[in-house]
Amino acid sequence: MNIVQIIGVEGVPIVKAGDNIAELICRAAEKQGTPVQDGDIIVVTHVVVSRAEGRIVNLSEVVPSAFAKNVAELYGKDPALVEVVLREARSIRRMADGKIITETRHGFVCANSGVDKSNVPGENYVALLPEDPDESARKIRSEIKRLTGCDVAVIISDTHGRPFREGEINVAVGVSGIKPIRDRRGEKDLFGYVLRVKQTAVADELASAAELVIGQADEGVPAAIIRGYKFIKSEDAKATELVRPREKDLFV
Amino acid sequence: MNIVQIIGVEGVPIVKAGDNIAELICRAAEKQGTPVQDGDIIVVTHVVVSRAEGRIVNLSEVVPSAFAKNVAELYGKDPALVEVVLREARSIRRMADGKIITETRHGFVCANSGVDKSNVPGENYVALLPEDPDESARKIRSEIKRLTGCDVAVIISDTHGRPFREGEINVAVGVSGIKPIRDRRGEKDLFGYVLRVKQTAVADELASAAELVIGQADEGVPAAIIRGYKFIKSEDAKATELVRPREKDLFV
Repeated sequence: MNIVQIIGVEGVPIVKAGDNIAELICRAAEKQGTPVQDGDIIVVTHVVVSRAEGRIVNLSEVVPSAFAKNVAELYGKDPALVEVVLREARSIRRMADGKIITETRHGFVCANSGVDKSNVPGENYVALLPEDPDESARKIRSEIKRLTGCDVAVIISDTHGRPFREGEINVAVGVSGIKPIRDRRGEKDLFGYVLRVKQTAVADELASAAELVIGQADEGVPAAIIRGYKFIKSEDAKATELVRPREKDLFV
Repeated sequence: MNIVQIIGVEGVPIVKAGDNIAELICRAAEKQGTPVQDGDIIVVTHVVVSRAEGRIVNLSEVVPSAFAKNVAELYGKDPALVEVVLREARSIRRMADGKIITETRHGFVCANSGVDKSNVPGENYVALLPEDPDESARKIRSEIKRLTGCDVAVIISDTHGRPFREGEINVAVGVSGIKPIRDRRGEKDLFGYVLRVKQTAVADELASAAELVIGQADEGVPAAIIRGYKFIKSEDAKATELVRPREKDLFV
């Protein structure tokens, strides 16, 4: 029988710039009786990584460009926030209905370049995505290895809206130690039919599964341990494998 | 501490037209020592529901229209398959690179109107989505209640690709007993900031979580039990709450 467990890591203190996230997570997991084990997948919400890495911007110190001011006026938004969103963007995909959908510097297509107002201390502060979320994941992973001896995979998650469907889901923006896509092309189905188009975005599904314990807590649960899922290991995987190249996208 | 369990239901016999899926799942769950409990969420892959409901089409009996023939020739596809895809569609959203992205009769935007070649017996057969997946979920749910006395929620899942991101994930196409979207607008974050845009598509996240046990099995695992997730009950929820109205979509 196959059982996958999703364990919320509670009791993590509020993460500040310079904090060692790996240590805080390992200690909290230990304290609640579910220490990190070999083969676990640790999903961490990007906003705590951003806080630890100092990727927090004080909007009152941002000088918006004329373009940012125009957009902000058009949509009734804060010009400084629009300026930060534009600075984090490689391109603008849609701007309508008060929404700004951009392609981030990493290649992710999402609202506001992933700039986040929630779970950031101070009224006028926002969190940016980590500079290099795969590198953030790699550091947390190697630090967990150093602290516990356990070989785990790490996923940094963010909350994304999507076309066609209402509601947001969590997806992976950084990975370390796990192949984010499981390629099942060539495998046979129940009746011997060879699958031709099956590539499963397992890192996104794991991020969504983690949200089930991260999102429903009243207090902050910045991380989840996923236990019992047999993933394909990889030392050089990148979350950008989950990004469809623009020229292949039918909904550019 | 908050632990959510995802339990693969193994040993379910191959589902045929007219089979009682609820009974097969309950019996298999019981046999493997994880009987269905109150508060469980049962995620069932749509293809077994389609098989049980006889939503299987023999392509050799389908007479393709001239339009279907044209499209098939253009993309090197089977004209009968294209015909079935078009019959299941309310509109065509994109047709390029050999892909046909449609809006199904239910409103879901996905490849090939959800018509599926895998896990269907017989070389020339395909499975359609259930006629009314919410009604399919409702029937399975009430049958589980009758058989076991347990009040559960049921989600019918399908595998969808998506814009911008590579790889497929599982989403909900039918629900019963659970509100598919958790509206968190108005809740406060860790630092007292009132969330303004947070609506979580929990039914999609649950479908993705279930795929972690459904998708990785070599043998058929047509269903998963998700245990320990506190969801918002609803007697009249519909999976189409997860469909963004076309006029609100920036990527139509």
